[in-house]
Amino acid sequence: MKILVVGANGQIGKHLVSLIQQSDGFEAKVMIRKQEQAAYFENLGAETAVVDLEGEIEPIEQAADGVDAVVFTAGSGGHTGKDKTIMVDLDGAVKTIEAAKAANVKRFVMISSFDTTREAIQEANESFAPYVIAKHYADDWLRKTDLDYTIVHPGLLTNDTGTNQVELAGKVTRGEVPREDIARVILASLQDETTVGKEFQVVGGNTPVNEAIKLV
Amino acid sequence: MKILVVGANGQIGKHLVSLIQQSDGFEAKVMIRKQEQAAYFENLGAETAVVDLEGEIEPIEQAADGVDAVVFTAGSGGHTGKDKTIMVDLDGAVKTIEAAKAANVKRFVMISSFDTTREAIQEANESFAPYVIAKHYADDWLRKTDLDYTIVHPGLLTNDTGTNQVELAGKVTRGEVPREDIARVILASLQDETTVGKEFQVVGGNTPVNEAIKLV
Repeated sequence: MKILVVGANGQIGKHLVSLIQQSDGFEAKVMIRKQEQAAYFENLGAETAVVDLEGEIEPIEQAADGVDAVVFTAGSGGHTGKDKTIMVDLDGAVKTIEAAKAANVKRFVMISSFDTTREAIQEANESFAPYVIAKHYADDWLRKTDLDYTIVHPGLLTNDTGTNQVELAGKVTRGEVPREDIARVILASLQDETTVGKEFQVVGGNTPVNEAIKLV
Repeated sequence: MKILVVGANGQIGKHLVSLIQQSDGFEAKVMIRKQEQAAYFENLGAETAVVDLEGEIEPIEQAADGVDAVVFTAGSGGHTGKDKTIMVDLDGAVKTIEAAKAANVKRFVMISSFDTTREAIQEANESFAPYVIAKHYADDWLRKTDLDYTIVHPGLLTNDTGTNQVELAGKVTRGEVPREDIARVILASLQDETTVGKEFQVVGGNTPVNEAIKLV
């Protein structure tokens, strides 16, 4: 199973590519923004495609051609301007969804935000609201496709070493979760078809990822 | 026919409210952000509702309750941060659409941007792209409803005195158009049911607004 990781150079993305490359029957193809990011992934044995998420859909479609699933884990990041939020977190996500459809890739895993409901938008402070809005519409777009989607809503991301233990359900209490464990959740979702058409929140917890995924 | 003008305090909005108040059988209700903006419209005999487009849907729904049509002509404006683009031009528009649906108001006129197609997004420069993306998704949301919508795509807006003469079609050559004439086009659209389910670009031209509207 070949997985296109969009946003591979992000922190979750790097964990995910490593996990994929270590997993029997899985191989990663990475979509990255800059050629200088390629060597890192080539050293892991991953195929690379240099594509600008702010550009046209066609190069994304070409990157998705022939893969079995697409994972969207790109993010504008806190250090960029708010204009990047709508360009990457919303429009980049929608273009990736449309590219998957055009390339006949049915399986799609979206890394969303912890809560992207209308209520969450209204409760967000002015600084965070644009990001929640962008993720809200991206998730909405994906739900309205006929792709075999899974939407992962992670809690507060940390760089702590993963424990492979999570709490995972439609609704959980807000909390921290290591990026490494989110990468495990993504891979486990790709390995378990019961996650198709589902979405769930994930925080640190006491259930091994592979078991937690089965209870969704 | 009572028209809720959302974004009434904008330049197109002010022209539109004046035109509505001068038209037999039409009356304006204005949605404005600040109480201090109300007196201007009360002097024109218009009903006022002070509602924050960045807030909840319910107050917008209350403002729309009992009107016959909603016109969305709010805009974040060039002087605000890019975060307002996604909050007002996209999410504010979608909330207004949802409020109209909830209030059982079927008729909706959207003031969009000249070109909100995927191609226009890709051609826009980095500074303008967020706005085009926001309008793209707002227009898309409206098209997918069962509202009786009209989407007006104005050319480059000027403060010149209106001529009541326009060029108006699905596709026209980009050009200038006075805001006052866009207000006339909105009112004419509300007066002519042939514009339901249609969208068109408008620039300055040689055809009287009422005639141009009939040819859509």
